[in-house]
Amino acid sequence: MLLVTYSIGDGPHRVGSLRDNEIVETTAESMADVIHNGLIETGPRHPLAAVTLHAPLRPGKIVGIGLNYTEHVAESARTLDTDKELPQRPVLFSKPATAVVGPEEPIQHNGNLTQQLDWECELAVIIGRTARRVRPEDALSHVFGYSIMNDISARDQRRSGQWFFSKGQDSYAPFGPAILTADEVADPHDLDLSLRVNGEVKQKSNTRYMLFRIPELIADISSGMTLEPGDVISTGSPAGVGASFTPQQFLRPGDVVEATIERIGTLRNPVVDAR
Amino acid sequence: MLLVTYSIGDGPHRVGSLRDNEIVETTAESMADVIHNGLIETGPRHPLAAVTLHAPLRPGKIVGIGLNYTEHVAESARTLDTDKELPQRPVLFSKPATAVVGPEEPIQHNGNLTQQLDWECELAVIIGRTARRVRPEDALSHVFGYSIMNDISARDQRRSGQWFFSKGQDSYAPFGPAILTADEVADPHDLDLSLRVNGEVKQKSNTRYMLFRIPELIADISSGMTLEPGDVISTGSPAGVGASFTPQQFLRPGDVVEATIERIGTLRNPVVDAR
Repeated sequence: MLLVTYSIGDGPHRVGSLRDNEIVETTAESMADVIHNGLIETGPRHPLAAVTLHAPLRPGKIVGIGLNYTEHVAESARTLDTDKELPQRPVLFSKPATAVVGPEEPIQHNGNLTQQLDWECELAVIIGRTARRVRPEDALSHVFGYSIMNDISARDQRRSGQWFFSKGQDSYAPFGPAILTADEVADPHDLDLSLRVNGEVKQKSNTRYMLFRIPELIADISSGMTLEPGDVISTGSPAGVGASFTPQQFLRPGDVVEATIERIGTLRNPVVDAR
Repeated sequence: MLLVTYSIGDGPHRVGSLRDNEIVETTAESMADVIHNGLIETGPRHPLAAVTLHAPLRPGKIVGIGLNYTEHVAESARTLDTDKELPQRPVLFSKPATAVVGPEEPIQHNGNLTQQLDWECELAVIIGRTARRVRPEDALSHVFGYSIMNDISARDQRRSGQWFFSKGQDSYAPFGPAILTADEVADPHDLDLSLRVNGEVKQKSNTRYMLFRIPELIADISSGMTLEPGDVISTGSPAGVGASFTPQQFLRPGDVVEATIERIGTLRNPVVDAR
């Protein structure tokens, strides 16, 4: 099932399922409600154009994975002062829930803080069942579903090497447009993903090229850190970030970024001047 | 007022005020309730020994500040591969809410993941009012109160320089025992803080030696990242962390760590084997 959080006019946020460009109403009050209690479709439908989509949920925590596609490791070493060698263990960082925005919500470009606002299209894993010291072979049973996160970074706001402020500012975690439930994903490592800026393709890869795959990521994170229902793992970006181009390309007010993952959809966000 | 979150026996968590080693019952159901609605003491008292104290609240986000006391910058450069120069901007990182434990709760020592478990006594600032792009001169009006956080790190779990997994594991954020409300703190930069391991003093300083002070921290963070009520800023550690000793000293199962800040109290946690 493809689930969305939506509202109509000034109405409350509700959870619906997306079928044939229509939203089907359900019994669920929120995505957290679905994760804990499931949902039933109740029948009434709305054309997609008649609703506003929101981020699917407010994550408890977002665990980001750095340097998780081989070619991105190489381009980062050239342009972002990171190691040339492939990481031996997953590189973990975090974004706060306050960074999340939904489809069509603006990515804030504050020219007083950054001249290097960059994109990263990533498969987002939504946890459905508490995971603590989970073995790789059991890990996927803790996944509720999959979505898209655009891991926005202000490359010039790394602080003594720490990525939290560079990746954690308001609007730096566009999330959505939908969650594809895990029961419909036989293999999460066979999904095309791509990202366009103003219609031009910048990233194009497939989740099969992840260095550390989702079962290993869940096992590694949960070896020390409990993953709770509603937590999100953003599994890292393929090659083609703005910093890797010669000359470098960064987002500017007026740009439109579209991150697409096969079967999940397209997460579209405009960039606005937010000085 | 000195506020605590406590329970009696199997009863629910409640908020009380701490007076003369007694807990005074209040109208508040949770610390979030106090932050939003205030509280009134209702009269009944319990001896401190008759209650269990918990972490004061579950933070929305925890923003940690690295390298924020001059002498700790120097010791870290010697032993932890960080820069010798004082940072020009606050070094921001994050711990997840799942890392929080309360007074007397164990710090988990997993010998399969770390041989370098370390301590850092820090003044914790609890946000009371949403802060977005706040000026330093207005910043303290967004503070609800002050507490203690012990910023536990597995020094050998930094990943490509990122501190999130090294500082974010379960039990790596002991928090409490109480919140001293901001109205009673004329100057948060005049508080003695110290930390003992098995009774031996390891850290001893005063918050006046912070490099970036609380108003600057709130202004800097909120320039890009909204601070919400219940968010916590852990303002950095003075010198005397375990990695700085020759030979280095790290926490072992059976150790007891006590972090003390003047007027707030002592946050005591045993270290347990959690392999």
